[in-house]
Amino acid sequence: MPEIVYLNGFFLTKNKALISPDDRGFNFADGVYEVIRYYKGQPFLFDEHIRRLERSLNAVKIVFNDTHELQNIFNRLILENRLNNLYAGIYLQITRGSAKRTHHFPKENLQCTIYATAFEKKPMLKQLKTGIKVISRPDIRWLRCDIKSIALLPNTLIFQEAVEHGADECILIRQGNITEGTHSNAFAVKNNKVYTHPDGNLILSGITRIAVRKICSELNIELIEEPVKQHEIHNYSEFFLTGTGNEIMPVVQIDNYIFGNGIPGKITREIQRAFFKHTYEQLAGEIIGI
Amino acid sequence: MPEIVYLNGFFLTKNKALISPDDRGFNFADGVYEVIRYYKGQPFLFDEHIRRLERSLNAVKIVFNDTHELQNIFNRLILENRLNNLYAGIYLQITRGSAKRTHHFPKENLQCTIYATAFEKKPMLKQLKTGIKVISRPDIRWLRCDIKSIALLPNTLIFQEAVEHGADECILIRQGNITEGTHSNAFAVKNNKVYTHPDGNLILSGITRIAVRKICSELNIELIEEPVKQHEIHNYSEFFLTGTGNEIMPVVQIDNYIFGNGIPGKITREIQRAFFKHTYEQLAGEIIGI
Repeated sequence: MPEIVYLNGFFLTKNKALISPDDRGFNFADGVYEVIRYYKGQPFLFDEHIRRLERSLNAVKIVFNDTHELQNIFNRLILENRLNNLYAGIYLQITRGSAKRTHHFPKENLQCTIYATAFEKKPMLKQLKTGIKVISRPDIRWLRCDIKSIALLPNTLIFQEAVEHGADECILIRQGNITEGTHSNAFAVKNNKVYTHPDGNLILSGITRIAVRKICSELNIELIEEPVKQHEIHNYSEFFLTGTGNEIMPVVQIDNYIFGNGIPGKITREIQRAFFKHTYEQLAGEIIGI
Repeated sequence: MPEIVYLNGFFLTKNKALISPDDRGFNFADGVYEVIRYYKGQPFLFDEHIRRLERSLNAVKIVFNDTHELQNIFNRLILENRLNNLYAGIYLQITRGSAKRTHHFPKENLQCTIYATAFEKKPMLKQLKTGIKVISRPDIRWLRCDIKSIALLPNTLIFQEAVEHGADECILIRQGNITEGTHSNAFAVKNNKVYTHPDGNLILSGITRIAVRKICSELNIELIEEPVKQHEIHNYSEFFLTGTGNEIMPVVQIDNYIFGNGIPGKITREIQRAFFKHTYEQLAGEIIGI
């Protein structure tokens, strides 16, 4: 079955979806995106994704007022691609549109380019169970990491290093602090308290991070928004990443440092269990065996 | 006459040139570019542009071995668009190619996307004569500004601020130092000596900057590669920007500070004259009257 995608008002087979090389998304990374998880047809924290999208659009001054129409588009993509009974995701990208190349915004009112795809996204069962290994690298990204922009070259280059080192993600270090991963937020646990980098311009505030905040509150786990210093990482007993793709992903090793005995920690498991209860309707507990 | 562009081996009218929305240039800003000036059919410092392109490709690990074929492509674009007797420019963009979206590089060997256009680019006579006004903003870009990547969203957003403030460019300030403009290199003059930010990861080493280095050497003007501190700008008598589009552009005002009496300085004029002797075959001196 050919993949159906959405582009500027039309549902098309992917090979028919084409854009101009003058699209500012292509020339200037002048656009933003979202990835939304769909659990058997149900979007996860949809409104939170839309609110973040609106913040990103606003930050880069792209005028797009039709966010209320997106849910219908996504639902149809899920259906047309027969993903409504599966674990899936939606990718959405909005750029300023296509115009003669100028560094400043084009003077005329452009039509935004809206591109969306749907794809199967199975839970990463093995990794969710055993935890993953990550490396660390300097956080060389710009100072507006809070914008979910498509200017992802830095993330791509750094994540590629992780892959080449046999690691599953790379955590980023700015002025000695762990900010986040290349496409995930980072959390560390010490004395049963969870620490994560505060919101602001240095991290992309994740939607799964919002879910973790809520879960911690429900479970009476203290969540402290303070940066974790890389050189103090041995004071922490657990580490995990969150993200739309990663969900709640235990980290058992950063570079050469192994947490505890190399298996996911107690607090991480508690948060995983609570998360999967919401998302996989209690099935995941059995599947993953956590 | 319809514009002819080059895309992946073909010369096409622009409206026929189309790319996949899965191009990594569109999803990840995973590509690099060059803009080369053509003065009546003659490229300016062509080899230097190609060497920089190769450095950029290497830095982002895009494998493209056909740089030797680019000159023929550019020449044909200049001819087909009837620009060979005009002042023109070539835009070249190379991305990693099109693939299913993954943060890491795709495992299969991709065909790079090669896109090139030709356009008329008249000298900015008025501004070259009277000088321009610029604003300053924090340099929020990533820490690999030496790569000429298409991840230009920061440059775009900052330059747009300049335009909205009625300025012609924005100079960027990192830790108190002037690094460069959003699409130009910056130079200041004090006691007949020229100062500019040193090469390294904080600036894009411009091709016109290379020309300035050569001209300074020929004119026995000392060129010192040291950062200019923003708060010491009043100690400098002249300021100018360089770039493929700007050429040698006098700056007469930064924010509220006006240099000298608000007209381009003596050293700037000397460098302009020498530059235009190379590029406009002594015509520009008459045209611009400098």
